[in-house]
Amino acid sequence: MNIYRYEQNPLVTPAAVKPHRDDFEVIGAFNAGIAEYNGEVIMLLRVAERPISPDPEVVLAPVYNVDTKELELIPVRKDDERYDLSDPRVIILKEYAPAFQYLTSLSYLRIARSKDGHNFTIDEKPFLYPSESLETFGIEDPRITQIGDTYYIYYSAVSPVGIGESLVSTKDFVNVERHGMIFGPDNKDVLIFPERIGGKYYALHRPTTKSVGRPEMWIAESDNLLYWGNHKHLIGLRDGMWDSGRLGGGAVPFRTERGWLELYHGATLDHRYCMGAVLLDLNDPSKVIARSVKPVMEPEADYEANGFFGGVVFSCGVLVDGDRVRMYYGAADTSMACAELSLQEILDSLEEV
Amino acid sequence: MNIYRYEQNPLVTPAAVKPHRDDFEVIGAFNAGIAEYNGEVIMLLRVAERPISPDPEVVLAPVYNVDTKELELIPVRKDDERYDLSDPRVIILKEYAPAFQYLTSLSYLRIARSKDGHNFTIDEKPFLYPSESLETFGIEDPRITQIGDTYYIYYSAVSPVGIGESLVSTKDFVNVERHGMIFGPDNKDVLIFPERIGGKYYALHRPTTKSVGRPEMWIAESDNLLYWGNHKHLIGLRDGMWDSGRLGGGAVPFRTERGWLELYHGATLDHRYCMGAVLLDLNDPSKVIARSVKPVMEPEADYEANGFFGGVVFSCGVLVDGDRVRMYYGAADTSMACAELSLQEILDSLEEV
Repeated sequence: MNIYRYEQNPLVTPAAVKPHRDDFEVIGAFNAGIAEYNGEVIMLLRVAERPISPDPEVVLAPVYNVDTKELELIPVRKDDERYDLSDPRVIILKEYAPAFQYLTSLSYLRIARSKDGHNFTIDEKPFLYPSESLETFGIEDPRITQIGDTYYIYYSAVSPVGIGESLVSTKDFVNVERHGMIFGPDNKDVLIFPERIGGKYYALHRPTTKSVGRPEMWIAESDNLLYWGNHKHLIGLRDGMWDSGRLGGGAVPFRTERGWLELYHGATLDHRYCMGAVLLDLNDPSKVIARSVKPVMEPEADYEANGFFGGVVFSCGVLVDGDRVRMYYGAADTSMACAELSLQEILDSLEEV
Repeated sequence: MNIYRYEQNPLVTPAAVKPHRDDFEVIGAFNAGIAEYNGEVIMLLRVAERPISPDPEVVLAPVYNVDTKELELIPVRKDDERYDLSDPRVIILKEYAPAFQYLTSLSYLRIARSKDGHNFTIDEKPFLYPSESLETFGIEDPRITQIGDTYYIYYSAVSPVGIGESLVSTKDFVNVERHGMIFGPDNKDVLIFPERIGGKYYALHRPTTKSVGRPEMWIAESDNLLYWGNHKHLIGLRDGMWDSGRLGGGAVPFRTERGWLELYHGATLDHRYCMGAVLLDLNDPSKVIARSVKPVMEPEADYEANGFFGGVVFSCGVLVDGDRVRMYYGAADTSMACAELSLQEILDSLEEV
């Protein structure tokens, strides 16, 4: 696979993003939803900010309070034996492990814009910020599906009661209409197809199950984008392969002559995240036609291998123009980068299933 | 609370149910969906059957094979150290604990009928049997919502990829139309309201979350019963109380003058299952008005305290006639029983929240 990583990579780094509060630091600007609007490439960044703790022995957990409309900073002492702080992203109360009690950072969505797709300017203010009870721990990993002149933006809404997927829409990336939580917890990595297929809308989704089952990709259908049903299991983990530990949708699926192409992420049990592809039937996307045996892209560049959570390439959106696939992706849960790939090469690399 | 348990309790026991195969034994006939049809009370039993193992050192796990349309019996040696068999209901591969690998029994749905609501006759054949890939481990805990002349039956569909809630419908309890999985995994304890409210259908549901959150009750809305969205968290666990460990919907909610009354189950962390009540706003059931501080009913009779899984009362349906609430319920994951309660007493026992 020929991969052309942009010379400007990483295109956006935490250092380039001004924190939204003086007492916070930006630790990630990554996993952006991608759209084209008004002649510009829009990167809808997931910005993760961490409260700066005045006491090095205390971690501050940011939680949005829906009543006061303010962030609360919950102090957790590093020597408090009730907590497990070994994963830098989460604070686990050992009694409820592996479920987490708090996150160590707050994520929200912020726009970066570019005329050429290489050089981005970051908006001063957040575009979408936690504002309701299902978002008090933050909003993460947005994807954008354009249908007509409407951009549907959906993201993981995180709160003490679970992680689900919520939907908003906009026509101008200024005014936003909220549509509530479309996939209840535990669910993330939702990808809405950009057109009706046989009269129905479809979405990929990734339940995280506890009773039985593993983190795998499902598909659901809808007639209005708000209500979803007819859930079916789509693709599963493959022992010994690059997607043996977990997988989920990545970029918004797009139409090719041979089928709907979904560039998805898969990880090994030791958390190395690659991008691969699955091809779905044009008339019935619940049918799998072909799939990557080897990843389409692996974390190899320095900014992909090292960062807040190293060894990760994670795309939430691509721009496709003929044979050229511009895959924007989060690198190491830290920055945004872009790589160009050949659509034909991706399709040729897939093996029928 | 005055509770009148029927003298005939338990009304249906495993001994009264003929297994559907000679090499199986019935270990449970419980957690039945309830309906009135054609002048009879219908109990749609969850029947759990276990393969009789010829070797006492081997447990046989029943799994439906969608290709051959036959059950496979997977042998697991009790001395195989890869497995944890301490919970008699499940076979856990320690590597993936606490998720289970197999169930030790297969559940399916079977009808019991009664003219008087006390004495039931059990159909010879299963009414609904596992038949597709999302049901290969069985189908459990049905509920029935009657809307017009249609009975909507929904149940936990269990398979290696997760536990979700699937929907079928019937007009005659003979012919069945399938509508697929309406709530993806992990989810169970769905309860569909029996009429539109403000133009929308509503359902309670109970996600089981892994990342964050506990087993609590949510509510969703729909315009066609097939596709669901606008998920909201409804009620949570209460430390130190009867519903401190897990909770979920029980009986189909019904309209009262003061609100929608939902009789739900709650359990402590040591798995003692009681029934309690929550009252929801008549015009917006996502608003909680009042809730039981003490259970409405606790497992006290011998057949509730002792059985396959003792200390459980678990209702999936009630019949309401004026002040009389006939609550049919599963006892000890083994049998079916019925108790009569006063609607007024239940309502008077609730505390506003």
